[in-house]
Amino acid sequence: MKKKQEVEKSLKNLGGKVLGDIDKGENPSIDVPIRTLSNVKFDVESQMIKMGGSLAKRYFFNVGHVRKFVQTIEAAAVAKELIDVQKHLSLRETFYKMKRTLPNSNINLVDEQEESNAAIEDLELITGASREFLHINANKLGSVAGKVVVEDKGDTIDWSKLGSGGWAIPSNVEEIIFKKVDAKFIIYLEKAAEWERLHEDRVWEKLNCIIISSQGQATRGIRRLLQRLHVEHKLPVYILVDGDPWGAYIYSVIKYGSISLAHISQELAIPGAKMLGLTADDVVKYELKRHLIKFEEVDVKRLEQVKNYDWFKDNKEWQKQFKLWKELNGKVELAALSSKGITFISDKYIPDKIKHKEWLD
Amino acid sequence: MKKKQEVEKSLKNLGGKVLGDIDKGENPSIDVPIRTLSNVKFDVESQMIKMGGSLAKRYFFNVGHVRKFVQTIEAAAVAKELIDVQKHLSLRETFYKMKRTLPNSNINLVDEQEESNAAIEDLELITGASREFLHINANKLGSVAGKVVVEDKGDTIDWSKLGSGGWAIPSNVEEIIFKKVDAKFIIYLEKAAEWERLHEDRVWEKLNCIIISSQGQATRGIRRLLQRLHVEHKLPVYILVDGDPWGAYIYSVIKYGSISLAHISQELAIPGAKMLGLTADDVVKYELKRHLIKFEEVDVKRLEQVKNYDWFKDNKEWQKQFKLWKELNGKVELAALSSKGITFISDKYIPDKIKHKEWLD
Repeated sequence: MKKKQEVEKSLKNLGGKVLGDIDKGENPSIDVPIRTLSNVKFDVESQMIKMGGSLAKRYFFNVGHVRKFVQTIEAAAVAKELIDVQKHLSLRETFYKMKRTLPNSNINLVDEQEESNAAIEDLELITGASREFLHINANKLGSVAGKVVVEDKGDTIDWSKLGSGGWAIPSNVEEIIFKKVDAKFIIYLEKAAEWERLHEDRVWEKLNCIIISSQGQATRGIRRLLQRLHVEHKLPVYILVDGDPWGAYIYSVIKYGSISLAHISQELAIPGAKMLGLTADDVVKYELKRHLIKFEEVDVKRLEQVKNYDWFKDNKEWQKQFKLWKELNGKVELAALSSKGITFISDKYIPDKIKHKEWLD
Repeated sequence: MKKKQEVEKSLKNLGGKVLGDIDKGENPSIDVPIRTLSNVKFDVESQMIKMGGSLAKRYFFNVGHVRKFVQTIEAAAVAKELIDVQKHLSLRETFYKMKRTLPNSNINLVDEQEESNAAIEDLELITGASREFLHINANKLGSVAGKVVVEDKGDTIDWSKLGSGGWAIPSNVEEIIFKKVDAKFIIYLEKAAEWERLHEDRVWEKLNCIIISSQGQATRGIRRLLQRLHVEHKLPVYILVDGDPWGAYIYSVIKYGSISLAHISQELAIPGAKMLGLTADDVVKYELKRHLIKFEEVDVKRLEQVKNYDWFKDNKEWQKQFKLWKELNGKVELAALSSKGITFISDKYIPDKIKHKEWLD
């Protein structure tokens, strides 16, 4: 991850390059890494989904290129302004900020958010900085608790002293400073209700860990927070999701990265993350068969897709699970563990799993 | 709102009533207020959607009643257990906890969550307590910031010292104690991104207010937090939503309550809440016409529905807005204000509106 100063330098270099072309009387151009599927692959060595090295040259004086060229430069101008005034915008706000009409024309610089998004993604590649460093934020979601003290915007925040709510995770966690991290591992939960379960049962205190939840797919802010704690503080990450192909995909994205964000896997992926549950084995072991919710056609189809991902297809343990899911022909929710007792997930399921190293890798 | 002890007493009374019937050799019965549309109406005096007084008697020895009768008693038993052990469950977890097979049969007490939900709603009516007091929680969502200090679960939390994240609002805010409230009003935002905008611009500090956001429809926890601050600390509530019928509906629910939760409007509705924006007038005044997103058929249909609600249909100002929306034939997002400048919403739009009392009632 590039540091703040380097990001500013990258933006300056981009502008300097274009101005240089103009000074030399050349057709202004920028090099943009290609973000098509053909340039994305699973990198076995790093165990991450990564981008290949293919580059494309984009010219100003080229009818097919000019719109994207100008959009990328405009995205850079917005990022520079944001950095200069020390403010942030969301992706949607950035779209509206970029959506201006070119002078003496009825042409909008961007008409749809897809265009500003693509320009921002190109800018991430050109500058080597994730858009959080360009002051363009992702969605805000999720809560965290644990024996951790952070410094953020001049405030000192103790994640163990925030009542039943916990700390609301910001969309951008790049500038958070970890002052004290007194935890042995992290539990990530797909469901906010299960986070409240663990929090009420004070699992983070009893097991000396950090608990983090999203609601559905983990946002960039949550993934980056997990990754920073994992990398900077060597904390193992255990993932708890509903037992279905969609849960397996949430795990997959946190662990290996995703195709659409392949260019920043280095900052988001956590190859060391472990799947704690719910596994198909859990359904048998914890007698949850009666709580199976029958797969719809879309679930069966998704199961086939996920099963055949490059990073799963040679993994014997995962293939065993996928096979068993197909036999079970239904999904099981984390909430179903409540049928075993109000605090079963906190007092028995999680401690046992961690004690016996009962996870999938 | 009944106090804790009263709720426990109500649960005991329910059990006592049924046991009494059995002792007397009578057919055990419970009285349940009727939750059909015909028993729900807009109460002009209180300006809330409220339930009428119709009651239904539900008998144990009645083939058509027995399933619901037993489900309601089971919900009461779960609530009592939760209160006894001082734990909470989510609606979904409660469903799984109630979903047990009756001894010597293959009959599940509940098969679908709709059944446990209905039993819990009946129990709210029977005990006169919202389900948060029965220890059954709603969804967890949202963030809050402002010069407020609360006490929750033994922790003292200062909403003005929580960095860029803010406090994550718990699903259940009944036990929060307000220790210090140094604010003149509350701004509620439909979008988390706009909350981050206002928070980064420190609007809560500059205007001396509290900022609260959901992401889409406000959860019960958020509505109850708004209502408690409004009632207990006499703070005006200003609502900021996207300019479309869906935003108008979010406002409508916060202000007047909703049909499905009519039985607890007293605890959730805020008849004094004001609509700050985005209004149809705003589109004209702030030259946002170019950012209109054309209505789909579903939007036009929704507009007609909302326009004809009892509490809107005689409101001249709102009818003027609905008419103008129809002419504009498109929605406008809060994020579109970014086109006027990064901090326009914080530095100009909100302060001007509040200064000139430019809101809808």
